Order: sequence, then C-alpha cells, then structure tokens
Amino acid sequence: MNFGTVAILGPGLIGGSLALALAERGLARRLMIYARSPRALDEIRLAGVDAELSTNPSEAVRDADVVILCVPIEAMAGLVKECRDAFKPTALVTDVGSVKGSVDRDLAPLREDRALWIGSHPMAGSEQAGFSAARADLFEGAAVIITPTRHTHQIAEQRAEDFWRALGARVVNLSPEIHDSYVAQISHVPHLLAAALVCHASKEARELAGGGFRDTTRVASGSPDLWVEILSANAKPVAKELEALITHLMALKSHLEESPEATLKLTLRAALEAAHDARSKMVESNPLFKKHK
Amino acid sequence: MNFGTVAILGPGLIGGSLALALAERGLARRLMIYARSPRALDEIRLAGVDAELSTNPSEAVRDADVVILCVPIEAMAGLVKECRDAFKPTALVTDVGSVKGSVDRDLAPLREDRALWIGSHPMAGSEQAGFSAARADLFEGAAVIITPTRHTHQIAEQRAEDFWRALGARVVNLSPEIHDSYVAQISHVPHLLAAALVCHASKEARELAGGGFRDTTRVASGSPDLWVEILSANAKPVAKELEALITHLMALKSHLEESPEATLKLTLRAALEAAHDARSKMVESNPLFKKHK
Repeated sequence: MNFGTVAILGPGLIGGSLALALAERGLARRLMIYARSPRALDEIRLAGVDAELSTNPSEAVRDADVVILCVPIEAMAGLVKECRDAFKPTALVTDVGSVKGSVDRDLAPLREDRALWIGSHPMAGSEQAGFSAARADLFEGAAVIITPTRHTHQIAEQRAEDFWRALGARVVNLSPEIHDSYVAQISHVPHLLAAALVCHASKEARELAGGGFRDTTRVASGSPDLWVEILSANAKPVAKELEALITHLMALKSHLEESPEATLKLTLRAALEAAHDARSKMVESNPLFKKHK
Repeated sequence: MNFGTVAILGPGLIGGSLALALAERGLARRLMIYARSPRALDEIRLAGVDAELSTNPSEAVRDADVVILCVPIEAMAGLVKECRDAFKPTALVTDVGSVKGSVDRDLAPLREDRALWIGSHPMAGSEQAGFSAARADLFEGAAVIITPTRHTHQIAEQRAEDFWRALGARVVNLSPEIHDSYVAQISHVPHLLAAALVCHASKEARELAGGGFRDTTRVASGSPDLWVEILSANAKPVAKELEALITHLMALKSHLEESPEATLKLTLRAALEAAHDARSKMVESNPLFKKHK
C-alpha cells in the first residue's frame, strides 16, 4: 500500500512518529514536512529522515495526497486558513487533535470547498513532547479514532481507515461528540486527577512516593500548554464526567467517615473489585496494556 | 554487616523480596521463613532460596535476632499473639504494613513485654502479589518509613535503620500519625482514584484507552482483599485527604462549566503548571522516579 505524497504539518511527538513510521513501512512515495521554525526542521534533517522540509505550509501541501495536521489544536484553524488554497481537491486532510468537536467546528471551511476532511485521534502519546520523543512504533496496537460526521465524504472515511491501519493501528469510528465524551473519561479527567494528586501531596509526602504514585501521576508531567488547550476545548464533556466522579468520591468519603467497619469494607470491596475486574479485561483485550509489564 | 538469624513471617511480594535481598547481600547468617500454607513454602523451596521453612511461627522466630512481619495488616495481631512467647527479648520486631497507627495499636502488647518493636513501611511494591512477583532489588532506592513512638526503644530504632539501609533503602523516621497522613496522600487516595477512574469509564471508552490511562490506573489491578484492609485501617486520614481533593475538583468543575474561556485557561494553567513543576522535582530527586523512563 502506498499513499503517494504525504504532508505532515507539525513534526512533534505525533507528527514525527508518523514520519518515522511512514518511512519505515515505505507507505509514502514522497514525504513533505512543514514546521514553523527552521530549527525544528534542522532536528529532522539531523535525524536523517528522508523528507522534503519547508517552513511554508502551502508548499508542503501543494502536491500532497494526504495531509495530516499535527499542530496543537489551537493552531489548526490558523494553519488551515493559511494553506487551504493550496490543497489538492482530492487530498485527504485529517488531524491528530485530542478534541474532535471543536476541531471539527474550527475546520468547517475545509468541508465547504476543497479537500476530503475527516478528524482523527491516535490514542497514543507520552508525557514527552517534540520530535526527539518520536518513535516509529508509536501507532502499533494503538487505537485511532476517526470521527466522520454527516458532512464526511465516504472516500475520506475509507482512506483515513486505510491510512491508520497501514501504520498498525486499530481504527474505531465515532461521532465527534461521542469521541469527546470517551476521551474525557479515559484521558482528560484522568489528567486533571493526576495533576490534582501531585498538588495535594505535601512536599514531604512526595519525597516518599513509590512506583504507584510515579505511574498514577506520570501524565501530570505532560506539557501544561498543550493540556490547557485540550481541557478548555473539551470543557463541557470534562465537567460532566468530573461531576459523576465527584459524586462517587463523595459517597466513598462519607463511608470512610461514618460507616461501621463492616459496611465500609463492603463498600470498598464493591468499588475495588469492580475496578480490578474491569482492568483485568483491559489487560487482556487492549494491546497497549499488554505492551509494557 | 550481618543481622544474625532473620525470620520472615509471610513470604509474599514484600517478604519474598526481603528473603531474596538478604540472601543476595549476605546479610543474614540464618534465614527463617514462616508461611501459613505448606504450598507457599513449596514455592520458595522450588525457587532455591537458602532458608529454613516452617508453618509454625513460634519455630520460625525462636532464634531470630530480627523478625519481620510481612502478613496482611489484619492478620498481624493474631500472628503475634500466636508466637510472641517465642520471641527472644532482644529481638528486633518490625513489620511492613501500609498503615502504621492501627498496626501500632494492634501490636501494643509487644512493647509491654518483650522484643524491641518498631513499625516499618517500605514504599515499594507492585500491583502484583505473592512470592512469584518478589525481586531482590525491590528496596533499592525505595523509601522505607520507620515509625518510632515514645514507647520505642532507641536500640530498636537504630537497628531498624541499619537493617533497611543495608537493603539499599532510604530510611525516613515519622510518627505513625504523620505516616498515615502522608500515605493517604501518596498511596491510598491515589488508589481510590485509580479505581474510580476505571469504574467510571464506559466499556467502549476503556477499549480505546492508551498508555496514559494504563499507567494512571495500574494500581487498580492491586488485590482488592489487601486494599480493603489498608483503606479501612486508614479510613480517617484517607477521608480527610479525599475531602481536600474533592473541594479542589469541585472548583475546577465550576470553572469548566461556567468560566469565560480566558479565566478557565488561567485556572487550568495554574493547576497544571504547579503539578508539572512539582513532578519535575520528584523526577529529579526521587530515585524511584528515575528508575523507569
């Protein structure tokens, strides 16, 4: 399988991993990479990636059959505005943003004129950022959600599916709204909780923390810039999931404060066993949960 | 350094790792291991650990210079009652329980008659359990909290410090009460949150989860039996820390629901940057945070 000329706009962790994976798997005839800063392109040149590099997005997308927007979500609309006239009308345009409802609204002009637009979200990443953290195997076994709407051309959906599958990902189709609710549950609310846990532990307590706290809070080392944008772009779904969680935690707190020991233990057992069993299923069925330990 | 005859009561993850570490470092002249079930002892025999094995705790502790109680916290009082008459009056007796106030109360008889009692808590572990998960390097770089009280003999404190340091751990002295408040912050509340996150994600969302959710929720795969006992033994401190966290999350939720975008972003940035910076300090200063990635 070959996707012709592929343009990656924004070679950070995800864009850079895409470039490495496409090269390793021989999936692109030509690889175009756009970055705003010449220094970012230098890093890619030094790494020996076989690609044509440019700080001009129109130049990068002009001949592209597939365009992948890998810039932060708040930069997407501006970038697309800058280069949309250069898109080939048959180009598949997708992104890798962590929020889909707002991106879909921001990029609405794309579906009105030219290019085959569909949103994508690879559920892969790291608390690290930038090209230096990129890995050719980042998408292997990862879920990639694509978010067709009633405006999406069937060809865009099919080609996006083919593209991500060719990189080793599992592709799941969801509406932007369902996507945003799911990622609030499995990514955005967990991120807020990890940050809250770090802030709430006293300095003295943090120095004693072991491997459990290290892993529970790992994502809190992610870029604040990136996460401020993600969380504010998905504010309503995050608030809704957070509310459900708070209600659950308040009930637990009351039990811890007031329930007789036997009732408390029953309550804790129900909560912990449900979580234990659900997570065992994840370890069995989700390839990313098997990958490490 | 040599600690003479060392008795390990309960060769699970922690007790088993102690046995392996003592053997590897040549820290015990004789190693005694007690387990309730003959099958548990068979596993240790098969692993080729050089130790004298017994299902009789009095037999295991009779000649011991150091006794380490590695059974679940709810089993400690019963076990000590069973074998306390066999303790040498000069024996250092310590434990590895995750809660110290309740253990100290349960084992109060120890300080009244014989043996040098002091509580210990190695901040090392895993979501796995049992001897099969034991590792000789489990304590290397880990913090071990010892919890002297006004009843603790100075010799007990000194020998406990020496013992854990000889295994490669950093030793920190805290009162049982401060210990229980710190572990509520860095272990018990994070455990409840991890379990809550797993339960709150829908089945469909869980199937899409990536490495972030895997790590944030890893501890939720820990034994429900073990954690019901830990959380209920430390109920009041856990409730107190949970309350502070809930208050913080409720404020965030209000911002997500109601604040203008600029205010929301400022609030999120403050929370995420504080967490990011605090965690960076942990990565720099806490050896366990450097060990992996």
